[in-house]
Amino acid sequence: MKFQVTSTLQYSIKDLSTLILNISVLKSSSQTIFEENLHLEPFILAEELPSLDSTTRSVRIVSEGKKTLTIKYKALVEHEIKLIEKQQLSFPSVADLPSAVLPYLLPSRYCQSDKLLRLAQDKFGRIENAYDTVRAICIWIDKNVDYVSGSTDSETSAFDTVTQRQGVCRDFAHLGIALCRALTIPARYLSCYAYKLHPPDFHACFEAYMGGNWVVFDPTKLVPLNALVKIGTGKDAADVAVGTFYGNVNFKSMEVTNQVMDKDFRPLYFKDLENEGICL
Amino acid sequence: MKFQVTSTLQYSIKDLSTLILNISVLKSSSQTIFEENLHLEPFILAEELPSLDSTTRSVRIVSEGKKTLTIKYKALVEHEIKLIEKQQLSFPSVADLPSAVLPYLLPSRYCQSDKLLRLAQDKFGRIENAYDTVRAICIWIDKNVDYVSGSTDSETSAFDTVTQRQGVCRDFAHLGIALCRALTIPARYLSCYAYKLHPPDFHACFEAYMGGNWVVFDPTKLVPLNALVKIGTGKDAADVAVGTFYGNVNFKSMEVTNQVMDKDFRPLYFKDLENEGICL
Amino acid sequence: MKFQVTSTLQYSIKDLSTLILNISVLKSSSQTIFEENLHLEPFILAEELPSLDSTTRSVRIVSEGKKTLTIKYKALVEHEIKLIEKQQLSFPSVADLPSAVLPYLLPSRYCQSDKLLRLAQDKFGRIENAYDTVRAICIWIDKNVDYVSGSTDSETSAFDTVTQRQGVCRDFAHLGIALCRALTIPARYLSCYAYKLHPPDFHACFEAYMGGNWVVFDPTKLVPLNALVKIGTGKDAADVAVGTFYGNVNFKSMEVTNQVMDKDFRPLYFKDLENEGICL
Amino acid sequence: MKFQVTSTLQYSIKDLSTLILNISVLKSSSQTIFEENLHLEPFILAEELPSLDSTTRSVRIVSEGKKTLTIKYKALVEHEIKLIEKQQLSFPSVADLPSAVLPYLLPSRYCQSDKLLRLAQDKFGRIENAYDTVRAICIWIDKNVDYVSGSTDSETSAFDTVTQRQGVCRDFAHLGIALCRALTIPARYLSCYAYKLHPPDFHACFEAYMGGNWVVFDPTKLVPLNALVKIGTGKDAADVAVGTFYGNVNFKSMEVTNQVMDKDFRPLYFKDLENEGICL
Repeated sequence: MKFQVTSTLQYSIKDLSTLILNISVLKSSSQTIFEENLHLEPFILAEELPSLDSTTRSVRIVSEGKKTLTIKYKALVEHEIKLIEKQQLSFPSVADLPSAVLPYLLPSRYCQSDKLLRLAQDKFGRIENAYDTVRAICIWIDKNVDYVSGSTDSETSAFDTVTQRQGVCRDFAHLGIALCRALTIPARYLSCYAYKLHPPDFHACFEAYMGGNWVVFDPTKLVPLNALVKIGTGKDAADVAVGTFYGNVNFKSMEVTNQVMDKDFRPLYFKDLENEGICL
Repeated sequence: MKFQVTSTLQYSIKDLSTLILNISVLKSSSQTIFEENLHLEPFILAEELPSLDSTTRSVRIVSEGKKTLTIKYKALVEHEIKLIEKQQLSFPSVADLPSAVLPYLLPSRYCQSDKLLRLAQDKFGRIENAYDTVRAICIWIDKNVDYVSGSTDSETSAFDTVTQRQGVCRDFAHLGIALCRALTIPARYLSCYAYKLHPPDFHACFEAYMGGNWVVFDPTKLVPLNALVKIGTGKDAADVAVGTFYGNVNFKSMEVTNQVMDKDFRPLYFKDLENEGICL
Repeated sequence: MKFQVTSTLQYSIKDLSTLILNISVLKSSSQTIFEENLHLEPFILAEELPSLDSTTRSVRIVSEGKKTLTIKYKALVEHEIKLIEKQQLSFPSVADLPSAVLPYLLPSRYCQSDKLLRLAQDKFGRIENAYDTVRAICIWIDKNVDYVSGSTDSETSAFDTVTQRQGVCRDFAHLGIALCRALTIPARYLSCYAYKLHPPDFHACFEAYMGGNWVVFDPTKLVPLNALVKIGTGKDAADVAVGTFYGNVNFKSMEVTNQVMDKDFRPLYFKDLENEGICL
Repeated sequence: MKFQVTSTLQYSIKDLSTLILNISVLKSSSQTIFEENLHLEPFILAEELPSLDSTTRSVRIVSEGKKTLTIKYKALVEHEIKLIEKQQLSFPSVADLPSAVLPYLLPSRYCQSDKLLRLAQDKFGRIENAYDTVRAICIWIDKNVDYVSGSTDSETSAFDTVTQRQGVCRDFAHLGIALCRALTIPARYLSCYAYKLHPPDFHACFEAYMGGNWVVFDPTKLVPLNALVKIGTGKDAADVAVGTFYGNVNFKSMEVTNQVMDKDFRPLYFKDLENEGICL
């Protein structure tokens, strides 16, 4: 499946500032980039930061003086999705997990899984299949947490969301991740370009590790999972924030698009994936 | 119904210390004290603190020097309970609430109702009858929070319990109160002598205001509600703590008993009160 | 000293709603009201709620239907302040505290003194005089917490402010109260009309109990303490909020004034009160 | 300098369980292992987990059935320390930081630097030299936080410690790390064998990145920094916990030793390093 994704970000910057952006799409065995363009107005050099484990393609921009900086990104991407029957998505065993996967069992800034052990065990600890377990987590989040734009901020964590019961995609993902880890299911944050998200924005969901695969879950249920174009993954939003700023940087505006280039695209939403997990 | 209640508390005290104890049973129109005795070994004067609103009968003890202080309390009490059909237990209207009841709508140290608005509304906001609503809260607490001795401490609040899902009677009561207040149902903490509590201890539950009455609820479901002998009520455990200490006071031991003196006593547990509320 | 205070509040209200307002000035032995007027447009009855302990004069307003409600309050007040030399402001002893003062030692929703024991003891536990101790608390707050409008909200507590280091008068007062209580100095929240506050608004500071008196402290250092006109006191902001709303009430605008009517008024700021405490 | 380190851990295990241990010393260009032995009684295979970035040498043990497992580790290690004059320890610039260092600027589970920005800026934001800045942080922690064994648990974070003011080496390190990150100084957790720690235990301190080096700091001031033998580093204690357990594992006992093998060892404590930073 082919996608054209674009994003335009505008920041008002004073003084010397450094921006770390996660807007470039990931290169991987299942996601190929055909064309890609990053354009800055006024022109400044953007440096791609090497990633030891290929989970992000962060870009660093160093800006001097006072300016309005416009960043335009565009990419033509193809990805292959893999559908896996839920019978094959067995619970991972810590005894055999690859060492690169183990860190995704640990608590992180926004996913304090250590504080949610009982909640996770009580609500989801008796489901037989791993895929059904994480789907149950998503259904519970969607049912119990209201999607309210602007209701949370960059300090909001899964621990807060359990009680406050409102948030945006980022908060839904954090809670999903925390509950998975509390059940000894490795889980990681996924930042992506989503198709038909209203209002358009970068999207966040999460991946859980089962049957040897990272399976994608979207507790917001808002977008087709087979049209997600990966930007990066990390322990939580801190690792793959759209923008992390050091200095004096103020957000001005943002536009995000994701256009499906194939005519025969058939969207697969959360509801369509009852029996099969999807891997990007 | 007549009860004989006793409690024996032992503290190891160094230096000048002040103890505020809530172990004496309340005097009220529905609770009469026939005999009462407070005995301190070694002898020190105990001063009953006047209560402006008759919700507690706190006792202040000032101890000098190093000693082991034993406090023995005993009372023979009669109380009249009132059973009210749930049809009469209508939702209170803030427009008409007596001004003495209004404070029990506000958040307090251990009952941060302001942080639980959505949770309360989502789970319990659509039940028609006030009594059914608070029973639903109790059932939810009993189902979702495990009763685990020693799992919490004096800093644990309702906000913590929502996520940690374990606690003792005090935590169960705090969560019940916070959820009621979040739904605009006045609620207050009740400290009492309970019958057949294992292991024996002071007990805590809560009262919610509906149909003009303070109706008792016990989310632990552990004890008969018609055998509770009231010690006092307050906004939360801070107001009616068994012991509040200033100085150097260490707990050594405690014994609590509550003996029903009537032969024809028929216990009414949570499960027996589906259609009638009980007022002490 | 005579003052004319006014406030005009405007709310946009939908449906049946109840408002509890704390804008009327307190009547007490040291504060006399000469003229007072509360005017509602459109006209609705406002009911003064009796206060058992004379710490507030809350007003309840029940509004039906959709409307913009304007509330105008005006009062001509005289108060006598009392200046007490700091040598007389000794540490209170829990052993002798009046029972009506004891509750102000307990933790409350926004003043979790139980969590600040070590911080309070380490920073302020070795000062000999009670008045100097609370002044040191105020100086520390002023130095360590930035006054930033809009930086906090109705959920922010003293516990948060210790780490976040920003807030408004309400947060400054809560932190002052929590630190006092952690040192076994009773403290309570004071809502008032302040003179020359910029921008004009209701003001909050706190009172600490020492030498048998409630002495006023303003950790913001922004206003003269001898021109504060009392609205009410409570355990924290929850008890004397300017407005507590049940229903659908939205804030539209507010104007607050406090005019000194005496020509020979000499303002006493925090800095002028190094050796004398002020009681209202 | 040569060291012989040993540790003996004993766990009582029921059922199938997985243990991830961080007790083996790190191999690096500055730390050489001459002899090393890991012995399990009863015998089970221990698997060393590959580390992508060489910051840990975790070991995974999978135990079946009920048993008491004794783990004995012993190593003869030589490390070269590097002393760097503080003039060369300049503030890092985010614009130039190696991409592998950038993650150590982000908040993590126990080091919520995003919540401590103002506190860090107010207290330590005006010191000219980077090394002096982090020393000032350590001095502040040592002065304001009491070292109290057993006062905290595995859920305690830097955010809690700011207010609670007590903790163990782990908490001291977390707070140091969080404050550094809040000042845009990369910082990471260091787990190690320390010399002359009483009572003997694994030790934790932290490294801050300045002048292109990871410089070691010990806010507890308890041990000589030139006798620390590195076990591993990570974003916080979650990454290099001595033991992380999945299953039914209970701690029984622990013994830790670190013996200096060189006769001319001269200990360098915090107080001896006013002008020079130490790198392991």
